[in-house]
Amino acid sequence: MKECVFCSNIVSGREAFIFYRNQRIIGFMDKFPVEEGHCLIIPVKHYENIFSIEKDVYLEIQDLARYLSRALMEVFNADGINIGQNNGECARQVVMHYHLHVIPRHCGNEIRWDRVRMSQDQLADQARRIKDALKRIMDH
Amino acid sequence: MKECVFCSNIVSGREAFIFYRNQRIIGFMDKFPVEEGHCLIIPVKHYENIFSIEKDVYLEIQDLARYLSRALMEVFNADGINIGQNNGECARQVVMHYHLHVIPRHCGNEIRWDRVRMSQDQLADQARRIKDALKRIMDH
Repeated sequence: MKECVFCSNIVSGREAFIFYRNQRIIGFMDKFPVEEGHCLIIPVKHYENIFSIEKDVYLEIQDLARYLSRALMEVFNADGINIGQNNGECARQVVMHYHLHVIPRHCGNEIRWDRVRMSQDQLADQARRIKDALKRIMDH
Repeated sequence: MKECVFCSNIVSGREAFIFYRNQRIIGFMDKFPVEEGHCLIIPVKHYENIFSIEKDVYLEIQDLARYLSRALMEVFNADGINIGQNNGECARQVVMHYHLHVIPRHCGNEIRWDRVRMSQDQLADQARRIKDALKRIMDH
C-alpha cells in the first residue's frame, strides 16, 4: 500500500500549516492552492472517501467548513467561496484520504486550476490569520 | 427582488423530479445536468448561501449527500462522485438559493461543463430509481 501523504505529513504535523485541529479533524492550507487561501479539512483517521468515512466525523468536517467559509471571506476579503469534495480517481481525487476543499474567490479572477505558488512563510501567515478569525467566529 | 426558481418550481413541486423530501430539505434532479444523474439538495426555506443557512438544515443536507453518494454509485454504476457547492456569483453560483451538487462520474468521461440533454421521462425515471436506492441505503 502506498504511503498516504496526509497521514505522513499533515496528521503527523511534520509539514503542515494548520489553522484548526482537534482529536478527530484537521484544517490546513493546501500547499498547492488554486487560489490564495485554499484550505483543506480532513479526518485525523484515514478514510479514503465519502463512502468509507464515518458519519460523525464527516458531519464535523462539514460543520467546520461553514464557519471556515465566513473566516475566509473576512481574512482574504473574498467575494465568494467554492466548496468541493472529490471521490475516486475519475472524479479527480488525487490524495486517497478524504478531504474537503474550501476556496475563497474574487470577482474577475477565474480559477485557472494551475496551482498558485505560495512560500512557506505565506502559508504559515495565512494559517495564523485564519486560525484567529475562525476562533472569533466559532466563539461568537 | 427577482423570483427564485427553486422556490417557485422545486419547493412548490410544480416542475421538479424529486427523489427525497421532508419538511426541511429536498433532493431532486438537476434539469440541466453536467452528467447523467446530477442531483441537487436544497433547503425548503430560502437561504441564499452558506453564510446565511442555519446550521441544522445545513448539516441535514450534508448528511443526505453522504447517503446519496452511495445511491448514485449504485444507480448509475458510477466510478466516482463529485460534490460541489458555490457561494456568490464570482464562485459561479447561478441560482441564489443554497444548493449542493452531487454528481456521479465515470472513468474516461471528462466533465465538459456544457449541460447534457435529458428528457422529462429520463429525469423522472432517474428520480424514481434514486429514491428507491436511497430508501434502502438509509433504512439499512
